[in-house]
Order: sequence, then structure tokens, then C-alpha cells
Amino acid sequence: MKITRRKLITGAVGLSAVGAAAVAVKDQLPSVDEAQRMAKAHDALMKLPDLKLYGDEKIAMLLYPGFTALDMVGPNYFLASMMGAKVHLVSATLEPIKTDLGYALVPDTTFADCPEHVDLLFVPGGATGTLAAARHAPTLDFVRSRAATAKYISSVCTGSLILGAAGLLKGKRATSHWLVRNELAGFGAIPVDERVVVDGNLYTGAGVSAGLDLGLTLLGQLRGAAYAEAMQLQAEYAPKPPYDAGTPDKSRPELLEALRVMYDNFVQQTRSIASTSAV
Amino acid sequence: MKITRRKLITGAVGLSAVGAAAVAVKDQLPSVDEAQRMAKAHDALMKLPDLKLYGDEKIAMLLYPGFTALDMVGPNYFLASMMGAKVHLVSATLEPIKTDLGYALVPDTTFADCPEHVDLLFVPGGATGTLAAARHAPTLDFVRSRAATAKYISSVCTGSLILGAAGLLKGKRATSHWLVRNELAGFGAIPVDERVVVDGNLYTGAGVSAGLDLGLTLLGQLRGAAYAEAMQLQAEYAPKPPYDAGTPDKSRPELLEALRVMYDNFVQQTRSIASTSAV
Repeated sequence: MKITRRKLITGAVGLSAVGAAAVAVKDQLPSVDEAQRMAKAHDALMKLPDLKLYGDEKIAMLLYPGFTALDMVGPNYFLASMMGAKVHLVSATLEPIKTDLGYALVPDTTFADCPEHVDLLFVPGGATGTLAAARHAPTLDFVRSRAATAKYISSVCTGSLILGAAGLLKGKRATSHWLVRNELAGFGAIPVDERVVVDGNLYTGAGVSAGLDLGLTLLGQLRGAAYAEAMQLQAEYAPKPPYDAGTPDKSRPELLEALRVMYDNFVQQTRSIASTSAV
Repeated sequence: MKITRRKLITGAVGLSAVGAAAVAVKDQLPSVDEAQRMAKAHDALMKLPDLKLYGDEKIAMLLYPGFTALDMVGPNYFLASMMGAKVHLVSATLEPIKTDLGYALVPDTTFADCPEHVDLLFVPGGATGTLAAARHAPTLDFVRSRAATAKYISSVCTGSLILGAAGLLKGKRATSHWLVRNELAGFGAIPVDERVVVDGNLYTGAGVSAGLDLGLTLLGQLRGAAYAEAMQLQAEYAPKPPYDAGTPDKSRPELLEALRVMYDNFVQQTRSIASTSAV
């Protein structure tokens, strides 16, 4: 389902894996008019100075029991659109992985089979499952090993706790879900209240939905602003939330307190993990 | 992983399935102070006039080969948070379903086993796979049968083409991905250029990422504004895209034209489906 250089040569101008599907379904060659329009569009793209249309990035996105699907699926939408890139959904085994909302995604690569050197390592968040992953030696070993040579290291939401437990946040500016953002200090990080925090090759996103902003940021970094803008248009990512309560300072006090109480144990456990994995 | 009334009675104040996990992991009863704080938070919630904390909604979210994961995972995040609700991921069989980006999700309910009456029916979009689903009689039969008695019917992105092919858009205001929004007229709908379009019990969302706005809108409708705001806070849904190119009018002309060319065949096929399924 991915566009390849070869498919482009056969007449398709495309930017994404989704687009490839639209091309693959054609049961006839394009007309002369169509082919000319395609060629013209392709030429126009190739003139954009801030576009890298082709590449061969290797991307490893970690899955573990209880991860939050949206944390991964958001950035995946943008990263998997990169023509020539290969995205691996990596887990200990190839068994379906249950997310925190009960349904399962199927990984396609084991820790053992994941390429040794990846361009981008990504870690999603979650609740209990994330704490378990942050205490799971094989998971931490995998994260540490790929992070050692990855061009970029990234996380969304509480995924940064796993990076922290792997010792990857020391001295780094980073963020997490607002509930535990300040707990990153326990891992030696400098907590920053921003939607996407970049420190060198470390890209951390805030809670859950920040994955879309993180994914688009990484796409722009890897393939240039034009590619990211095209995928923003394909995703019709012009968000318009029907409420304005997405951060603690915008929340009604009763709702903020309810979430704090509900996750109090989660925060306590985060502290406990930080204290045992600290320098 | 869902909070139940019983768990609440044991001392947990919670709003979401994710929260339930934080509670379930406790290996000891809360302290007196904790329990008092929980009870106080719960009482404060119960006084909110625009909150319906408990319910028993049945929700059917359709999966089909080639659907776009983000279209479903976005609204699912909000809908699956509803305490007492049951979300079914429904497909023809229980085999894992490949999304348009190549990885697979596992459905949990077959067409045959899905409850006959659901409160909410949801249909995600995609590319080639969506066109195939819009031509697939068992899929259309399922959609039509559940739509007949559903309290709400909803879609994201090109999912509205499936609703159209099932004859559910006649005379209705609706939206879709911007590429095919105007093609909805071919199904007898009135295309509307809005992020989320509500016409009676029909809730349609624009392209891909609009699923978050649609999900939050539906959550507010089903459980009140306070519940939706709490989940917006949990999702930290305060979007901040790093680019501003999410709609055709904001796009660079070269990128808009490239996407139009790439999806030209998709648009043609949409017209063909509309013409054969028209009144």
C-alpha cells in the first residue's frame, strides 16, 4: 500500500500510502490528459525547495500491553506517509497487543527482528501498562539499544516515562501528560510545559492528542515543511474542538480534581519508578 | 479495564477506562485521607448539572479492510471512556483487519453478533478500501440494519460515502473529506463545509483528524458537556499544529493540486458509486 519510486514512474504523482491505494486500484493506464496533469503536478512538487519526496527511513514504534492506541496512531498517520520509509510496529512477540481501551493492534516486528539502527524510535504512553513497561527489562533494553544510534528519539504522553526509566532523559528538556510532567524531574529531565518539546534529537509530546502535533513536527523535520503541509491537508488537520478544556488551566476545578484523584496512584507509582531508576 | 459502579463504591472516583486501570493496579485499599478526597471529588462531580456519569450505551464502530485507523481511534478514545458503555468493533469476521497504512486492528464482534439495536453507529473512512466497502452488500446491509434503529449515526472522512451508498444521506446535511465532500450530492445529501455537521441524528465529520472533534461532540451529546470536557482534559486535547495548511484554502497550490491529481481516480469512482446507488 506504499507508493514506490516505480509506481511514480508509471504515472502516479503521490505523496502518501493512502494515495498509493488510489493509484493501485486503477485498472487502466491514465489517459494522455491525465498523464500530462500528473507529470505537471510532479514537476511542480519537485521545484519546492522545502520538500524531500523520497527517502528510506527506518522507524520503530513500540507497542506494549495497555498502551494508548491514539498516542501511536496519530503520529503513525504522518510518519507512515513517507514514501520509501518503513515503519515497524515493534513488540516482544507478534501476538496482538491489547490497548488500554480493550481492543488490540497487531505488531509486525519483534524486539529481536527490529533493525539494529533506526532513524526514529517512538514510544507511546498509557496508564498501568506504561508503568509495567517502564519496569520491564526487555522493553527497556530494546528502547535503550535502538535509542543509542537512532537519529531521533520520540514519545507521546506518558511514553516519556519509559524513556526516563531507560535513562534517556538525563539533563534533557522534555514533556509528558500534564498529570506527570513534573515527575520527569525524577528521571533527571527538565520538565517543560509545551505541546511538543525538542531537545537535540529528543522529541517529546504532551498527552495523547499531542501525537498529531508531534508526528507532523517529525515529518517536517524528516521530509521538509512542504511534505508535512501536504499531509496536514490530507489529514484535514484543522482542529476545532467543540469545548475549550484541554489543559488544566482551562478546566473546571471539579473535573481537574476528579482526574487528579483518579490518577493519584499512577503519579505515586511514577515517583517510585523514578526513584529506583534514578542516577 | 472499565470503571464499574462497583469499583466506584469501593472508593475510586473515575471518569474513564484508562482511569480504571490506575485503580485496578492498587494493591492496597486507599488510606482514610485518600478515600475522603475521592468521596469529595465524586460528590463535586455529582453536583454538576451537565454531567451524566453512568450509562449503558451500545456502540458499533465498523471496521473494514483498508479503513484509516485514525478515523476510528480518535472518536473511540472519547466514546470508550463512557462508564458503563460497550463499544463493539464490528466486522464481517473476527480476523484482524488491515488498515490503509498496512498494520492491523482486531475486531471483537461480527456483523451477525452485533446487538440488533445500538445507540450509536460509527463508520470510518479510507481510500480504496472504503470504495470497496461502499460496494460490499453485506457491509451495506449491516450499516442499513443498525442505522434503522440507532439513536445516532456517524462517520468520519470518506466513511460518509458508505452511509451514502447505504441510502442514509438522502436530504441530509453532511460532510466528508474535502476531496469528495461535494460528491455527497450524488447520494442525495446537502454537502456542508464544516468540521462536524449535525442533521438530526446524523453526525458526519470532515477528513481523518476531524474524528477527535466528532468524538468529543458525540460524547457531549451522550454524557453532557462536563464529561466531554473531562475527557478533553485527559486527552490533553488543546491542539497546536506546527503548520497551518489543513484545509484547501490554506494550502499551497502545488500541494493541493498534487493531492487532487493523486486522488482523481478516487473521486471518479466515488461518482460512479453514487450514480449506481442513487435514488
